[in-house]
Amino acid sequence: MIFEIVKSRGLSHKSYFIGSRGAAAVIDPRRDVDIYLDIAKRHDMNVEMVFETHRNEDYTVGSLELSKLVDAKIYHGAGLDFAYGNPAHEGDSFEFGSLQLEVLETPGHTPESISITVKDMDASEDVYMVFTGDALFAGEVGRCDIYGPEEVERMAGSLYDSINQKILPLGDGVIICPAHGSGSVCGAEIRDVDITTVGYEKKTNPLLQKTRRDFIEHKVAERFYIPPYFKRMELNNQRGVEILCRLPHLRALSTVELQGMDDGVQIVDVRDPESFAGGHIPGTLNIWSEGVPAFAGWFLNYHDPIVLVDYDGSRIESVERYLIRLGYDNIYGYLAGGFSSWFKSAGPVETIEPCSVHELRDKLEDPSIFLLDVRKEWEWEEEHIDGSHNIYIGILEEKLEDVPKDRSIILYCDTGYKAGIGASILKINGYINVTNVLGSIMAWKKAGYPTLGVEFHG
Amino acid sequence: MIFEIVKSRGLSHKSYFIGSRGAAAVIDPRRDVDIYLDIAKRHDMNVEMVFETHRNEDYTVGSLELSKLVDAKIYHGAGLDFAYGNPAHEGDSFEFGSLQLEVLETPGHTPESISITVKDMDASEDVYMVFTGDALFAGEVGRCDIYGPEEVERMAGSLYDSINQKILPLGDGVIICPAHGSGSVCGAEIRDVDITTVGYEKKTNPLLQKTRRDFIEHKVAERFYIPPYFKRMELNNQRGVEILCRLPHLRALSTVELQGMDDGVQIVDVRDPESFAGGHIPGTLNIWSEGVPAFAGWFLNYHDPIVLVDYDGSRIESVERYLIRLGYDNIYGYLAGGFSSWFKSAGPVETIEPCSVHELRDKLEDPSIFLLDVRKEWEWEEEHIDGSHNIYIGILEEKLEDVPKDRSIILYCDTGYKAGIGASILKINGYINVTNVLGSIMAWKKAGYPTLGVEFHG
Amino acid sequence: MIFEIVKSRGLSHKSYFIGSRGAAAVIDPRRDVDIYLDIAKRHDMNVEMVFETHRNEDYTVGSLELSKLVDAKIYHGAGLDFAYGNPAHEGDSFEFGSLQLEVLETPGHTPESISITVKDMDASEDVYMVFTGDALFAGEVGRCDIYGPEEVERMAGSLYDSINQKILPLGDGVIICPAHGSGSVCGAEIRDVDITTVGYEKKTNPLLQKTRRDFIEHKVAERFYIPPYFKRMELNNQRGVEILCRLPHLRALSTVELQGMDDGVQIVDVRDPESFAGGHIPGTLNIWSEGVPAFAGWFLNYHDPIVLVDYDGSRIESVERYLIRLGYDNIYGYLAGGFSSWFKSAGPVETIEPCSVHELRDKLEDPSIFLLDVRKEWEWEEEHIDGSHNIYIGILEEKLEDVPKDRSIILYCDTGYKAGIGASILKINGYINVTNVLGSIMAWKKAGYPTLGVEFHG
Amino acid sequence: MIFEIVKSRGLSHKSYFIGSRGAAAVIDPRRDVDIYLDIAKRHDMNVEMVFETHRNEDYTVGSLELSKLVDAKIYHGAGLDFAYGNPAHEGDSFEFGSLQLEVLETPGHTPESISITVKDMDASEDVYMVFTGDALFAGEVGRCDIYGPEEVERMAGSLYDSINQKILPLGDGVIICPAHGSGSVCGAEIRDVDITTVGYEKKTNPLLQKTRRDFIEHKVAERFYIPPYFKRMELNNQRGVEILCRLPHLRALSTVELQGMDDGVQIVDVRDPESFAGGHIPGTLNIWSEGVPAFAGWFLNYHDPIVLVDYDGSRIESVERYLIRLGYDNIYGYLAGGFSSWFKSAGPVETIEPCSVHELRDKLEDPSIFLLDVRKEWEWEEEHIDGSHNIYIGILEEKLEDVPKDRSIILYCDTGYKAGIGASILKINGYINVTNVLGSIMAWKKAGYPTLGVEFHG
Repeated sequence: MIFEIVKSRGLSHKSYFIGSRGAAAVIDPRRDVDIYLDIAKRHDMNVEMVFETHRNEDYTVGSLELSKLVDAKIYHGAGLDFAYGNPAHEGDSFEFGSLQLEVLETPGHTPESISITVKDMDASEDVYMVFTGDALFAGEVGRCDIYGPEEVERMAGSLYDSINQKILPLGDGVIICPAHGSGSVCGAEIRDVDITTVGYEKKTNPLLQKTRRDFIEHKVAERFYIPPYFKRMELNNQRGVEILCRLPHLRALSTVELQGMDDGVQIVDVRDPESFAGGHIPGTLNIWSEGVPAFAGWFLNYHDPIVLVDYDGSRIESVERYLIRLGYDNIYGYLAGGFSSWFKSAGPVETIEPCSVHELRDKLEDPSIFLLDVRKEWEWEEEHIDGSHNIYIGILEEKLEDVPKDRSIILYCDTGYKAGIGASILKINGYINVTNVLGSIMAWKKAGYPTLGVEFHG
Repeated sequence: MIFEIVKSRGLSHKSYFIGSRGAAAVIDPRRDVDIYLDIAKRHDMNVEMVFETHRNEDYTVGSLELSKLVDAKIYHGAGLDFAYGNPAHEGDSFEFGSLQLEVLETPGHTPESISITVKDMDASEDVYMVFTGDALFAGEVGRCDIYGPEEVERMAGSLYDSINQKILPLGDGVIICPAHGSGSVCGAEIRDVDITTVGYEKKTNPLLQKTRRDFIEHKVAERFYIPPYFKRMELNNQRGVEILCRLPHLRALSTVELQGMDDGVQIVDVRDPESFAGGHIPGTLNIWSEGVPAFAGWFLNYHDPIVLVDYDGSRIESVERYLIRLGYDNIYGYLAGGFSSWFKSAGPVETIEPCSVHELRDKLEDPSIFLLDVRKEWEWEEEHIDGSHNIYIGILEEKLEDVPKDRSIILYCDTGYKAGIGASILKINGYINVTNVLGSIMAWKKAGYPTLGVEFHG
Repeated sequence: MIFEIVKSRGLSHKSYFIGSRGAAAVIDPRRDVDIYLDIAKRHDMNVEMVFETHRNEDYTVGSLELSKLVDAKIYHGAGLDFAYGNPAHEGDSFEFGSLQLEVLETPGHTPESISITVKDMDASEDVYMVFTGDALFAGEVGRCDIYGPEEVERMAGSLYDSINQKILPLGDGVIICPAHGSGSVCGAEIRDVDITTVGYEKKTNPLLQKTRRDFIEHKVAERFYIPPYFKRMELNNQRGVEILCRLPHLRALSTVELQGMDDGVQIVDVRDPESFAGGHIPGTLNIWSEGVPAFAGWFLNYHDPIVLVDYDGSRIESVERYLIRLGYDNIYGYLAGGFSSWFKSAGPVETIEPCSVHELRDKLEDPSIFLLDVRKEWEWEEEHIDGSHNIYIGILEEKLEDVPKDRSIILYCDTGYKAGIGASILKINGYINVTNVLGSIMAWKKAGYPTLGVEFHG
Repeated sequence: MIFEIVKSRGLSHKSYFIGSRGAAAVIDPRRDVDIYLDIAKRHDMNVEMVFETHRNEDYTVGSLELSKLVDAKIYHGAGLDFAYGNPAHEGDSFEFGSLQLEVLETPGHTPESISITVKDMDASEDVYMVFTGDALFAGEVGRCDIYGPEEVERMAGSLYDSINQKILPLGDGVIICPAHGSGSVCGAEIRDVDITTVGYEKKTNPLLQKTRRDFIEHKVAERFYIPPYFKRMELNNQRGVEILCRLPHLRALSTVELQGMDDGVQIVDVRDPESFAGGHIPGTLNIWSEGVPAFAGWFLNYHDPIVLVDYDGSRIESVERYLIRLGYDNIYGYLAGGFSSWFKSAGPVETIEPCSVHELRDKLEDPSIFLLDVRKEWEWEEEHIDGSHNIYIGILEEKLEDVPKDRSIILYCDTGYKAGIGASILKINGYINVTNVLGSIMAWKKAGYPTLGVEFHG
């Protein structure tokens, strides 16, 4: 049996390649599908089937792309009307080589979610592993808020039943292969491991210790942001998107070319926040490269050309892949030679004042500062630096009226990266005195400085 | 947590890299250790510890090599007096990052065998996975014959207890990481999967369905060959071997240089048997490249220079690695340009008559042929082609008196590769009419031709 | 200045990437253009222009493919009516970065052939290098027979003038970058170097020592075969072909699938001749992998599906590229697992008797053999083994009536590879006793055995 | 013939691999020799000889390392007493394959400098190419100051003669392969091309247009800095250094480990200057990664441990190689996770004020600033910003008394990178107000702002 986990960083997305005796299936492929072709070639296998465990909302799935290139059949849950592929129902079974895959309907994250069990018939008729999609993760379960707050209770009940009546009964020894790992926006507290087992989750997953009532209550109380691009991903994944065939070749732009582009151009500086602080092109958005999968969808539109700015080009291809996975087909180019080619050409340069947590402590005395925490609302409630105001980074642009223009704005988040996004947004919007706390609350706490929680949460 | 499986083909050996927050351990490293350095570098980790689950007998372990390069500590079971490293006892515990590793003494395969459990303390104090070495495999258990036939019964009882009292009680949900996969000489019927679980093995592993008495009986009845190089590997792994530092650079030999070498030179043609049949250098041994890990140790000595012959050089590096893992430090070079440079230089060429299973059927009528099955004795007993004689390939050279020189020798094995080794050995020893059955008994059966079993086994 | 030579093996084709300050040109791109994209990306450059030195007849040029992916302009000689791109006339000049490229019309190989000079204006206004296409090679000049025998004299005169009036006057110190290297079908005796200079060629190129009259006489006397696919390449390159976008993904075929394919399927075994001799699928054509660029076009049609057989898959991608460069868009798949999967599945196997030159010498006495030399007619005339008949491999299928079916056919060529093609063709056509001389005339001579030349050539 | 150019960035060093029929020579190998082994393996070649064109002073040559691994003979000019290798005299000739290499004694850069001509005897007895070492570059000639100012006149005459009596007479068509390309410290104005020819240099190299007298005058007037490490390289290359065997594995250091290291540790931040400006570890030296080959030797000693700080680890291996080439064997480790892991761990952070050229213009009015140009003395004389003081970056530490502590120091250089080194040096030495002009004089001029030259130069 060939079994390979394909992890997509940033999205913390996991897809799987499973094959036996020349035939293979891919579960939840990403949109840049070259990696599956490479695995197939390495093992002399044909990808015959592509399974989607659910209609994804956080990225554009690569089923159509892969299917087109290798002539495979696509299957997804029967509970939704997809414009492509085939419906898979409870108990549907697919065989290739020594493997038998079988569909379990496991609604809850979405109504049409499915899990797929794997038996190795050479060894036994017992289930060996199960692909659980966004139903069950290591240490977590899927979100139930995708269909709106009014549906959470119903969906949570449904998810509880799926897990308890379908997945856990498979047996403690069954290996669980979820669709996301640690860091995904699709689950709050996913553990940082590749695989887990039913038995280990039953013992250690806090959600599985709850009664149905407590489980639902927990899910109803749970709070998530829904990035604006989720809607587009849902459409993409229900209707299908254009076939790319290959990663688009990006144009290497000179400073002069970049300066000559229309105002609409979306320039994204993918360097780290302290580098952006040390110098950047005025008016540009800063999203560090590994933050692109999770944050680009909050800020970039799907029509104006996107141009990337990097140190030296080494991050361009991975950022391009990240954007492609989010359905961006409007990536135009990148600044040739990186940021330094801008300043060598006498392009105007702006800076942001960075500050360490030790400097922050000294500045807190100063009444003219406005301390802005851009983490999630509930993270702030849990614990924050005294005196800070909270606006989540994703909605900062909508809430600018809450940020005073006449004060020194000091931003922080977990470690300084999201604060870097925020600092760039404030600068774009005309704020002059903007400071980013490098290390943010993580360093603040390591340094032993005090934090506050909001009473009713603490 | 970083968890990577490093598989060494041919040996079907599995080593593991496990790390957390900058520190890592490697379990049973192979001797060409560059891959662990690469993983460590990729994850910004230092390998702090190297564990050996037991003194390996089928390859030269890379603990010393790795330890030298990264300054790590080596641990192995306390039950044997190693010339390097540190003893690890039941209950010894090692922590790094969020991980806690703990030693279980699990004798049976060898007296000093240990297993190592892993807990992810961030998640819980429950065991998450266990490295079982050669105690428990997917679908199999370890050999108990390494210390001689008189010890098998005692060792088997010991192994039964280790598995049943130490490993299985860890819980069904625990992930099992064994030291070998399908195809290893260290276990007869290992299944072809990367990982398994306690629960899945309890359900499906035939050895775990047996009582202690039946288990021991099964192990006592079990038959294995002990290749002559096992003794050397045991010494290597107990005493330690020379540090390589890097893969030795091999000399690209011209036909003239090769022809000028001393008689002692060990020329190994690593091409496939039908290619060897179609033309080869007289007097050379044929071991197809992927067969080198399992068979080189039967035929090659450790002092005379080894020279490799390939198609085009593409298999040289992997064969070099295979030999290094077997402790061969006497690899001298390879024929530059591959076999074709030999015949282009007017070197003498010999051939072997290959034959298909369909041709074999026709030839069986011919009383002058001597049909030789070079599979294992018990494989022959289980099922063979009528009229065949059995000599295991590993001992063929010692048993040549049983192979008549005046008859046409037709060799077969499973698929024709080991028969290819055999054919080359016979040619070296002066046999003239030698035929290799391509596809051998696998194809024979696929073609629907009959086989025989020996009564008391069938 | 960035200057990279992209060599395509087999075709011995050379294309060039030349860039300066962010902009680049590609000269004579091959059809699988990923390599130019990679170079461009590595140097942060945009390919702005693609030049074709002439309408190629030996491969399908990648200008349209590349132009489509990077949005570059295509230029070719004005003397032919291309369905795409732009005409370039004598003296047309193109500038980017510090470079100035200028067109020289250098007809002779084809009427519309151009050369392109390069000046590095940062250094001086002197010509630094020149792309000579198929006009002038290292040690050779281009063929003049493409437009038919009646045109050779005129074309040769034209070529002489192009070289002597356009290229050589550029100055001895000018670097020459030709479109082909040693081994190309586009020039008989090209030397095995990457680049040369005007001065070195003037001293050492035998063609440049001749008077105009002698030069023309030499070219008129010169003999070349024109493979049938040349016509198609000419059409492809005049009209343009379909955009591939990426290397097509090939299907991994099982023995059963392959056996089930229609009779039309074109199975090509790309293994070396001695391997093919040692066992092959009945009815298949043998072209060793590196021979595919030069010989596939003689034997494969453009409509029936092509399936490749290899050792282990390692040669499949390069052969696929070779075929793509020849305009084959009908490559369907390859035998998964290589030839061994065929015989393991009990597929019928045929063999060919290989023989060494020493055995050949002994066999020559035998009056029943028919010794067939499949080299070029004029190679045979120059020197051959006594008693041999000559039919060029490319036309062997048309001349089968000259090969007696009732005799043992022994084939030879230079080294045994083309003889391997011939042996497979004879087997396909029902010949039973077919032998391939490994090493062929090269080994024959190295062994000190005698050859004959035909008087009037000798 | 196999001919490959191996370029080492930063040093702008070029070494060459040249081979024919299985044997090869390497000219001036760098110390990390894996690339030559790879080329040799790719072409089935043995490196039989290693040539050093001269005792290098700007890097540690890899002859001994390579020779040890492949068992090759080393040759260098007879005019110096090397502790290893063999002397090569004028006219000494070496043959392998079709190649004949011959030694020309071409003193001038150093007394024992040699050039090596290459003839391809298959083509002709004319010289095809010549390795000129540091005698003749594209557009330049070698330095003559290595043996001190009092020797320059003599050496320059010697170099003039070597070029005019040995190299140029080889003929215009001869290809020149020099030991350095554009950017090397071994020649002032080397052009940015890989190869050139005698003819092209005769036309375009300004040094070759001069009379002997003018040539010597030019060389005597020429000014160079001699970095302190040159002396060590000379010793290294005369005596030989320790064999590395492989690139040392670097330790991934946590913030805590780094903080715990002795004061002596040499921390080098290899990020770009604007990133360093945006935040860095107090007391660290900033040399951007690609500046390490040229500048590390000015600042780092050979005994205290060196630790590297990067963005994300992507530049660590290349910087390690750069340091190895400079003979640094005291590289200890790198900050795991890059600079961000420092601030996430609450390490103290300092910043430097960057400034654009536009801001600089505004600041020039301010009498409290001290504008410091850290380019070479003669570059400053040629052209500088009015009001600037000049101290070359290499000697800044020795000249700190010339930099007032009580003023705002604004540094510039060509583009801001060397000014970044300077800024870090000033910070280390207690300067508080330090500003780095991003883009420096290059951007200043692009922006149209005025510069001054010193009269007697202008």
